[in-house]
Amino acid sequence: MILSIMTTPSGSEKLWGGRFSDDLADLAVQFSESTQADRRMIAEDIWGSQAHSIMLGACGIISQADLRVILSGLAQIRQQFADGQFDLDPQLEDVHMNVENRLRKLVDPEVAGRLHTARSRNDQVVTDARMHLRSRLLTLRQTLADLQQTLLDRGAEHLATVMPGYTHTQHAQPISVAFWLSSYAWALQRDQQRLAQTYERVNRCPLGACALAGTSFPIDRQMTARLLGFAGVMEHALDAVGSRDFVAESLADLAIVASNLSRLAEELVLFSTHEFGMIEIDDAYATGSSIMPQKKNPGMAELTRAKTGLAYGRLMQALTMIKALPSGYNRDLQEDKPPLWESLDSVESCVRIITAVISTLKLRPERMAELVKSNYAAATELANFLVRECNLPFRDCHRIVGQIVSTLLKEQRPLTDYRRVSELLAEAGQQISEQQLAEVLDAQAVLRRQVSQGSTGVEATAATIEKLRQAIEESRNEIAAAHQALTQARQRTEQIIQHILQGGELADLKL
Amino acid sequence: MILSIMTTPSGSEKLWGGRFSDDLADLAVQFSESTQADRRMIAEDIWGSQAHSIMLGACGIISQADLRVILSGLAQIRQQFADGQFDLDPQLEDVHMNVENRLRKLVDPEVAGRLHTARSRNDQVVTDARMHLRSRLLTLRQTLADLQQTLLDRGAEHLATVMPGYTHTQHAQPISVAFWLSSYAWALQRDQQRLAQTYERVNRCPLGACALAGTSFPIDRQMTARLLGFAGVMEHALDAVGSRDFVAESLADLAIVASNLSRLAEELVLFSTHEFGMIEIDDAYATGSSIMPQKKNPGMAELTRAKTGLAYGRLMQALTMIKALPSGYNRDLQEDKPPLWESLDSVESCVRIITAVISTLKLRPERMAELVKSNYAAATELANFLVRECNLPFRDCHRIVGQIVSTLLKEQRPLTDYRRVSELLAEAGQQISEQQLAEVLDAQAVLRRQVSQGSTGVEATAATIEKLRQAIEESRNEIAAAHQALTQARQRTEQIIQHILQGGELADLKL
Amino acid sequence: MILSIMTTPSGSEKLWGGRFSDDLADLAVQFSESTQADRRMIAEDIWGSQAHSIMLGACGIISQADLRVILSGLAQIRQQFADGQFDLDPQLEDVHMNVENRLRKLVDPEVAGRLHTARSRNDQVVTDARMHLRSRLLTLRQTLADLQQTLLDRGAEHLATVMPGYTHTQHAQPISVAFWLSSYAWALQRDQQRLAQTYERVNRCPLGACALAGTSFPIDRQMTARLLGFAGVMEHALDAVGSRDFVAESLADLAIVASNLSRLAEELVLFSTHEFGMIEIDDAYATGSSIMPQKKNPGMAELTRAKTGLAYGRLMQALTMIKALPSGYNRDLQEDKPPLWESLDSVESCVRIITAVISTLKLRPERMAELVKSNYAAATELANFLVRECNLPFRDCHRIVGQIVSTLLKEQRPLTDYRRVSELLAEAGQQISEQQLAEVLDAQAVLRRQVSQGSTGVEATAATIEKLRQAIEESRNEIAAAHQALTQARQRTEQIIQHILQGGELADLKL
Amino acid sequence: MILSIMTTPSGSEKLWGGRFSDDLADLAVQFSESTQADRRMIAEDIWGSQAHSIMLGACGIISQADLRVILSGLAQIRQQFADGQFDLDPQLEDVHMNVENRLRKLVDPEVAGRLHTARSRNDQVVTDARMHLRSRLLTLRQTLADLQQTLLDRGAEHLATVMPGYTHTQHAQPISVAFWLSSYAWALQRDQQRLAQTYERVNRCPLGACALAGTSFPIDRQMTARLLGFAGVMEHALDAVGSRDFVAESLADLAIVASNLSRLAEELVLFSTHEFGMIEIDDAYATGSSIMPQKKNPGMAELTRAKTGLAYGRLMQALTMIKALPSGYNRDLQEDKPPLWESLDSVESCVRIITAVISTLKLRPERMAELVKSNYAAATELANFLVRECNLPFRDCHRIVGQIVSTLLKEQRPLTDYRRVSELLAEAGQQISEQQLAEVLDAQAVLRRQVSQGSTGVEATAATIEKLRQAIEESRNEIAAAHQALTQARQRTEQIIQHILQGGELADLKL
Repeated sequence: MILSIMTTPSGSEKLWGGRFSDDLADLAVQFSESTQADRRMIAEDIWGSQAHSIMLGACGIISQADLRVILSGLAQIRQQFADGQFDLDPQLEDVHMNVENRLRKLVDPEVAGRLHTARSRNDQVVTDARMHLRSRLLTLRQTLADLQQTLLDRGAEHLATVMPGYTHTQHAQPISVAFWLSSYAWALQRDQQRLAQTYERVNRCPLGACALAGTSFPIDRQMTARLLGFAGVMEHALDAVGSRDFVAESLADLAIVASNLSRLAEELVLFSTHEFGMIEIDDAYATGSSIMPQKKNPGMAELTRAKTGLAYGRLMQALTMIKALPSGYNRDLQEDKPPLWESLDSVESCVRIITAVISTLKLRPERMAELVKSNYAAATELANFLVRECNLPFRDCHRIVGQIVSTLLKEQRPLTDYRRVSELLAEAGQQISEQQLAEVLDAQAVLRRQVSQGSTGVEATAATIEKLRQAIEESRNEIAAAHQALTQARQRTEQIIQHILQGGELADLKL
Repeated sequence: MILSIMTTPSGSEKLWGGRFSDDLADLAVQFSESTQADRRMIAEDIWGSQAHSIMLGACGIISQADLRVILSGLAQIRQQFADGQFDLDPQLEDVHMNVENRLRKLVDPEVAGRLHTARSRNDQVVTDARMHLRSRLLTLRQTLADLQQTLLDRGAEHLATVMPGYTHTQHAQPISVAFWLSSYAWALQRDQQRLAQTYERVNRCPLGACALAGTSFPIDRQMTARLLGFAGVMEHALDAVGSRDFVAESLADLAIVASNLSRLAEELVLFSTHEFGMIEIDDAYATGSSIMPQKKNPGMAELTRAKTGLAYGRLMQALTMIKALPSGYNRDLQEDKPPLWESLDSVESCVRIITAVISTLKLRPERMAELVKSNYAAATELANFLVRECNLPFRDCHRIVGQIVSTLLKEQRPLTDYRRVSELLAEAGQQISEQQLAEVLDAQAVLRRQVSQGSTGVEATAATIEKLRQAIEESRNEIAAAHQALTQARQRTEQIIQHILQGGELADLKL
Repeated sequence: MILSIMTTPSGSEKLWGGRFSDDLADLAVQFSESTQADRRMIAEDIWGSQAHSIMLGACGIISQADLRVILSGLAQIRQQFADGQFDLDPQLEDVHMNVENRLRKLVDPEVAGRLHTARSRNDQVVTDARMHLRSRLLTLRQTLADLQQTLLDRGAEHLATVMPGYTHTQHAQPISVAFWLSSYAWALQRDQQRLAQTYERVNRCPLGACALAGTSFPIDRQMTARLLGFAGVMEHALDAVGSRDFVAESLADLAIVASNLSRLAEELVLFSTHEFGMIEIDDAYATGSSIMPQKKNPGMAELTRAKTGLAYGRLMQALTMIKALPSGYNRDLQEDKPPLWESLDSVESCVRIITAVISTLKLRPERMAELVKSNYAAATELANFLVRECNLPFRDCHRIVGQIVSTLLKEQRPLTDYRRVSELLAEAGQQISEQQLAEVLDAQAVLRRQVSQGSTGVEATAATIEKLRQAIEESRNEIAAAHQALTQARQRTEQIIQHILQGGELADLKL
Repeated sequence: MILSIMTTPSGSEKLWGGRFSDDLADLAVQFSESTQADRRMIAEDIWGSQAHSIMLGACGIISQADLRVILSGLAQIRQQFADGQFDLDPQLEDVHMNVENRLRKLVDPEVAGRLHTARSRNDQVVTDARMHLRSRLLTLRQTLADLQQTLLDRGAEHLATVMPGYTHTQHAQPISVAFWLSSYAWALQRDQQRLAQTYERVNRCPLGACALAGTSFPIDRQMTARLLGFAGVMEHALDAVGSRDFVAESLADLAIVASNLSRLAEELVLFSTHEFGMIEIDDAYATGSSIMPQKKNPGMAELTRAKTGLAYGRLMQALTMIKALPSGYNRDLQEDKPPLWESLDSVESCVRIITAVISTLKLRPERMAELVKSNYAAATELANFLVRECNLPFRDCHRIVGQIVSTLLKEQRPLTDYRRVSELLAEAGQQISEQQLAEVLDAQAVLRRQVSQGSTGVEATAATIEKLRQAIEESRNEIAAAHQALTQARQRTEQIIQHILQGGELADLKL
């Protein structure tokens, strides 16, 4: 009797097909399958099934014999995938159905059919996604640390190299190259922090939430979480399967990383123009023109700048998707992974390429010095000097210096025309000698005088770089620790599997 | 002598490598190549080169003999691509370099080297993109027309089928199913218009703009445009190579299409719930649950709703990319095509799937009628009736009916409890018999009485559907005409090519 | 009896309060009122009520006596608002309730209560919004035309003024200032087109759609539309009240205008840097620094660039809002106007400020010429020359010139070192005299030789500017015609009102 | 002599006007002033100037006498603003210029002119913004905690009240009302975390970064930071003035809060429809219709859902604004505050209104129970039962139950037709009595059997609610502590000011 039901699976391999009289239309299969985005989660999906089945065995929900069969099948699938003998079939919709289907072919289907006890694709998919994402976050943090270090290393060579500091893309004050480059490394440190904090929220195990409401089987969610290297479980089943703020949050972090990169990229483009000429991008990272042979284009920086759009757009995609979704799992949520993987891939590749561009960048200190001199960047320092020397209110000094600059501009003289500046100051009632001015307005001297914490002064910048180096070191340690925790959990799972496959008992293990 | 320069191409196949001492780093090649997004433009790229070389020949910029060689090579590439013998090599960066490189291998490289005269990748890439985009816009319009027609056809079956009309997702007034479905068809008609108007702006030829400034060669841009089926040329070279508002505009059109689909999808989800129960999605387009066997999920509608995010996100990606870009070509612009193709693919597939869902949708008129009756949807009509019959101000009628409804709610009676309603009206000073009420409040009668243009009344809806059918017919004619113009241009190019390859003279042709 | 119902309006002035036992909480009133965004639509709201009541009178739905009373009251409200004696009260929720409430106070409330017959706030609000929007679109088009004309006028002074043309922000080829400035005017012409086409879709009258389904009153929607200056009616009632693609579309148009402005703004910032130095922003539009007296900051351009974010963000806001909304009116739709008005205000002010900046901009032709000479911008022209003179394939010329440039760079010589270039060409087997080179590579000569349509050549640019002037002229005519149509409709409505108020009959009028 | 410069401030009150020959055009003033967004930062701006001047005095950069004069003036401004006697004048551009200008009028302008020593508007504005933002973040966290608590309190009343749990908006399994409501409280707890972590990054003092490079005055940045209640200083001056990732991050947090609210709002709309009927929104938070008297619209939920667009749009605005901005201060950054304040205002008001809606929400347990029974929500539990009782593989049970459901649907029988279910199970080879089925499929029993952590089971939900209550309590403590730290810092500043104003010496204080 049972056979009459069991053997007429309406021609479909769909594991949820029982109730349906018709198969899904081809158009619908194509439209709704997710194997492309799922492909990269195969390892996580298998690990998830391994941990789940071990837990089912440990809790007495499946027998040890069945567990052994399931683990043996899963191990084969893992190997076949590694050997390129197994790939996802879009007809089978997603990674979970592909793996389970494979399992049914490799081992007794009746035993295979027990794997999905106390589990749903709803909790399974978000577990896979969190597992894959956490690894990618660690990798991204590592590449960011490399970029930060590169910025600091290149900066450290140039603590006393003077360049114009800009506000409004206009010369403001002389700064050092070290100060310029390290500013980006500091901004990226906040990206590090954000990614680390997001990691904590990502690294929680939804498994056991089942479809939406938990289960009546006596499962041990903590055990599964431990086996999978999670720091804990998602505390609420409905929230676990239906929420995707971890996706939006990760994409927001990525968008902000992209915004920081876009600013550095913009300056790479700007500073390598013929007009600025302060840097030269290495031939290995510059592109040419098919029609204009003299061109050396900052293509990598331009593409990095452009790819900001990808990161922003993917964030907006995910936010739009979750807008006004009712609670519980909705099929809409399937659209969470493509934007996530795409943004991760893109931002990570941008970080790598910018690291390469910075590490091979040629700096042109002479041009920088020339620009600093040719303009009025030291004017602030002159005003500050007047405040100190003449005990004038800052606002008055500002006005005096402003009018001097105005006069010099009309006369087409630089601020280094100390004789003329001295004359103009005298007209304004201040007696400052040419020599004093030369000392005050010399760019190197200006740098030397900047003493405030975080300023462009040589010592201040050296101190802030040192502090950041320590922070990066801590980040690296954090990343390594998190990475090791994942590796150990994977190894532990593997040990348990080997133990069982070699005929051992679960009871002999501490799980 | 010349050889010493010519034969040391620094080991690189890059066609712009002359000035560079080093090759592009592998990381940079990977990062910057665009063959994936370019692959779908191969046919357009070759057609572009065919038209360009014919024009060069016709204008005497290359010799007829050279033209023959070039055309022969391009024809071979076209064939090889069709036969699967030629595909893009990422090492060669983009489709243009791949095609030109192939040409140099198939024919005398010196002759092949003349093809790029009076052309740049800057004008070439945007020509290819516009050519590919215009075809896709036509296809999208066709699928939209199919969806519109499906909505009208399904609606036409149900001009007098009553369902609740909602505002705030609360029952407002009875409407017909035809009225409901046709409302979406009308919204989509504006999408048709927008896409048609965008098409006009897309279908302009940038070729001849060269790198950014035009050329000193005596080219004939009108001829090239004609050969490629464009309606005209981009009038300004700098604008032609550097502007991407046609991309942003296309993506905005697509985002709005997606928003319209998302609303229909939302109602498909809503109306197929157990609670609403007014429609049932066909098994062929519904999905099940791995853990909950009774589920019949509106997966296609949910995914369509979710993919709104993709369309919005890609629009935001393109807008971000062009923000604050200096004029002229910037490498950033390479990032215009991936979002465009992705959004086109996604929106088109959503239109197709929703068409399939609608055409197989089961409607449940009894449930609709039951819902209409069980609530107070006819209350507005009662107020209107009082206005007419009792010559009371609308606001007073509104208040009277409002308090009647309030009383009925407290007493848990429906509005179809005509006896009680009549009593309550009497208390408010209005003598209306039960029978009058039965006539006034019958849902079918309510429909029948709606007479205003565009209303849910049977005749009004039939008229508006008829008007829309004509508009769709005009859209279809437009699409067919545009399609034919492209086909003819392609055929004309092919004829010219055959003429030349068979030894004919350009002078014999009218170009 | 009736009084018992009529005189207990639960203490509320809410016109929809009949059914409710409690008033809306204060928090809820504050949260949901829309008077701030509605304030600017008062004139349109009153006009709408005037036209609606005239139509009701003409169709016999209200009596002429009542019409006279209503029109008299509305005229007073209009005057009171103009005199500052009437403003919106947030407690009354929106502009419609404020106007109707006022009317009830100024005239017999029973008569006032007849105004809302065959109308709903749902069709009323979107009518007001479309009316206000269409005026704003016309104003925006006018300011855009002014900016375009300013760009062309400033350009026309400089048809032969040479500046570097950039790609990748690197020197590419010499172009003229006219060519540079006119490129933006061309891009803006597409904005003109888009706004004009959007106008056509905006200028359709939803009135008569009522709540969602039309009405059983024998209204004449065409008459109302005519009186309000609309080009026609929204054909489908449900679509009329529930769709907001006209908002999304307008915001998309505005976002693209903003993107174009952001690009011009970026170049204003870039070209006015000390390093580029090609332009100087007039003091009246430049800002200074509180600490750095020498600064002259391109603040208006920077703010315009930044405000791109506002336009993009408001588009995203509207798109998000309409995502997955069920059909019919939803309260969500109230959130359509704030982003629309904000983006219109912002983009229009950006257009005005950039027009002012451009019209007062100082150009520095000597610096431009110096930059053109100091780099290798004429290299393309040298390659083209070799193609023509030596009949070499373009690709070979490209390579030869590329290697010459490479050698010159190493030797730190400019391309104008004709003696050296001649030597290097000779090494490459090409005999070109110094004098020939001087002729070929002179920037003015390069410009003169650009002959292709749309190129930077003096005549080509003059031609394209002339063509654009005609297009702008046509735009201006279109705008004026549209504006006049609105004015005439308003005047016609006013004439009818005066006629009625002075005791005239509707029957005497052709409506 | 000095007077000749000092007394010709070119007619302008602009404090940076020295160099300029012309005043800013009116259009430019209007376009670029920021007083509207700045108005709310007056208190912070004055506090900032108080702390800065105390530090200048303590470091010997200004005299104690001058400090006394400055503090006396600032105290007056503070008082005048509190009394409504001082407001920002748009002609004076921003809050800083307004306050400084006021100071020059209230006290000796020469002394007032010393206040801006070692400071710039660049570091000042971002200090004000961070100070204002941190307060707003705390308030938002408080309102969120209130909403969470309300959700839990309402939930706690209904630990055993059964309602349908949905996936795909289709009945999935029975859940409790407590489980449903608490799921949102959990999601909001992650918002709490994100906001708390953002707070840490926001609460860093940029003051002392000056224009971009720090200063040559011997300032003590730690002292200023301490006086202003900051947890520390921004470590890098260039990063401090030019970075706005704290704005983007805050807006991302707000967007995610909004997304969570939109989901709850959607369910409030959905569940209060006539069809679902599971909840009823209190009259105080529901709105009516002007034409449809029976309507009770969930306007607050709809508006909250719609305002998601505002939060998303403002995030996109800020991200767009910072895209590709060069380092240092750019005027673009002025556009950071409007989106920030607008999103904060909007999201906070949404949290408040939803709290009110939830706390007054009427639940309808009978309707919920009816829905649970009328559909097949217990089917999963039947499959689980078969797994346990009959030791069948889950997949087989799934298929058996699926086919039973399919048969029941065709026969239009509910799952509670235990006799028929028993028959069908027998046909499938499983003998289960009617009574067993009644026990298994009773909704209350289903709830009781859910035992897994985080499940909908009564005890599991009680436990997870308790855990969350503790987390909320910790959040409240954190918020209170942060708030107190700010209050103490403000009080400390005030004490110092009073000490100085009363003739005390700085040396007597520990700063």
